[in-house]
Amino acid sequence: MSGRLYGIGVGPGDPELMTLKAVRILSEVPVVACLAPEDGESTARAIAAQFIPAGCAEIVIRVPMRPGPEPASLYDDAAEKIAAYLSDGRDVAVLCGGDPFLYGSFAYLHDRLAPRFSCTIVPGVTSLTACAAASGGALARRDAALAVVPATLPDAELKRRLADADSAAILKVGRHLPRLKALLAELGLTEASTYVAHATRADEHVAALADLGDTAAPYFSMILVSKAR
Amino acid sequence: MSGRLYGIGVGPGDPELMTLKAVRILSEVPVVACLAPEDGESTARAIAAQFIPAGCAEIVIRVPMRPGPEPASLYDDAAEKIAAYLSDGRDVAVLCGGDPFLYGSFAYLHDRLAPRFSCTIVPGVTSLTACAAASGGALARRDAALAVVPATLPDAELKRRLADADSAAILKVGRHLPRLKALLAELGLTEASTYVAHATRADEHVAALADLGDTAAPYFSMILVSKAR
Repeated sequence: MSGRLYGIGVGPGDPELMTLKAVRILSEVPVVACLAPEDGESTARAIAAQFIPAGCAEIVIRVPMRPGPEPASLYDDAAEKIAAYLSDGRDVAVLCGGDPFLYGSFAYLHDRLAPRFSCTIVPGVTSLTACAAASGGALARRDAALAVVPATLPDAELKRRLADADSAAILKVGRHLPRLKALLAELGLTEASTYVAHATRADEHVAALADLGDTAAPYFSMILVSKAR
Repeated sequence: MSGRLYGIGVGPGDPELMTLKAVRILSEVPVVACLAPEDGESTARAIAAQFIPAGCAEIVIRVPMRPGPEPASLYDDAAEKIAAYLSDGRDVAVLCGGDPFLYGSFAYLHDRLAPRFSCTIVPGVTSLTACAAASGGALARRDAALAVVPATLPDAELKRRLADADSAAILKVGRHLPRLKALLAELGLTEASTYVAHATRADEHVAALADLGDTAAPYFSMILVSKAR
């Protein structure tokens, strides 16, 4: 009998924001997999580290951190490594920062493995609501339309979506910060915008966009726009 | 010294999807508050029930389940009840289904109490990603723009937003289901749509929208639209 694939959301950064279910499953699986940059630690693994049992087999999938899509062969190879354990009857838990199904690379492994193996997704706390909590303001209320947009979209598309939404979350701010500042100023939305980096982590940084100097924003940063404010 | 207000996200339904932090704080606070319908149990309290210590004081805020905004006096009165405990030096944890800052009534209590008392928000797993997990498909990938829209929006606005997004989540489907079905059919999005009710609960129901009969949808139901499918 084949093993089961788990996609485990480990939340936004604070290990205490992991769910009881994520912690329980990690205590039970014989194999843990994670995605990591070419050199350096996996963010998701660092969050879950204290809950990974000693002696657990580990698969580290190295993903180059370049703009644009990774080659399909990278996920083909990674899926085959995981499939080898699953075919051998061993459950594999893939650790995912935030939630497995919200802008995560887990989707590419799931595409390849879900047709062949049983699969359980354990949703996690996303950076969306972690940033809202850090900002001290609601992300969306009552009948508000919320737009979730990656900073990588072209200017014209970003402007159209930001102009049309009641509230918005701009993800993956990083090197796009100066461009986003200009764009939000043009839309008259600077005062409505809050910058949040590394929400729930020790180095969490929250600032009104208007007060933010020429900071180099990390990849895991977000701008929340709330027109009701 | 005043007590601290906690907004605690208890997740989408399965108590095991509560975070370690939510469970810890509940074990420590002397007062728990929740919102409930005029008659009947609070959804959030039912999720967290096993973690509420015996002997904890409880505040139940009864909210009439009518369309449209509740009277401001309802939240004024509820905030005053909570403020009495806080002023007395006792911490109060308000239980919130899903996440406190994503379409929750907690925002109205927070508006009134945060200017006067220290406040900590504990983000929770939202129904958005719980429904995606149940549907077995990613909510958003890479550069996709995700629209989160309440079903209560007017037809023209819903259509515009659904037509423009790469992926969408339509919340609070309930009695709007027949209208949404017609509207998604007009947009040619029936095949791209999945219906999910009561995600992660014992009575979870997932169906391709095209296969869904004339079900009466509960309030806690969602339609996920993924144009990449």
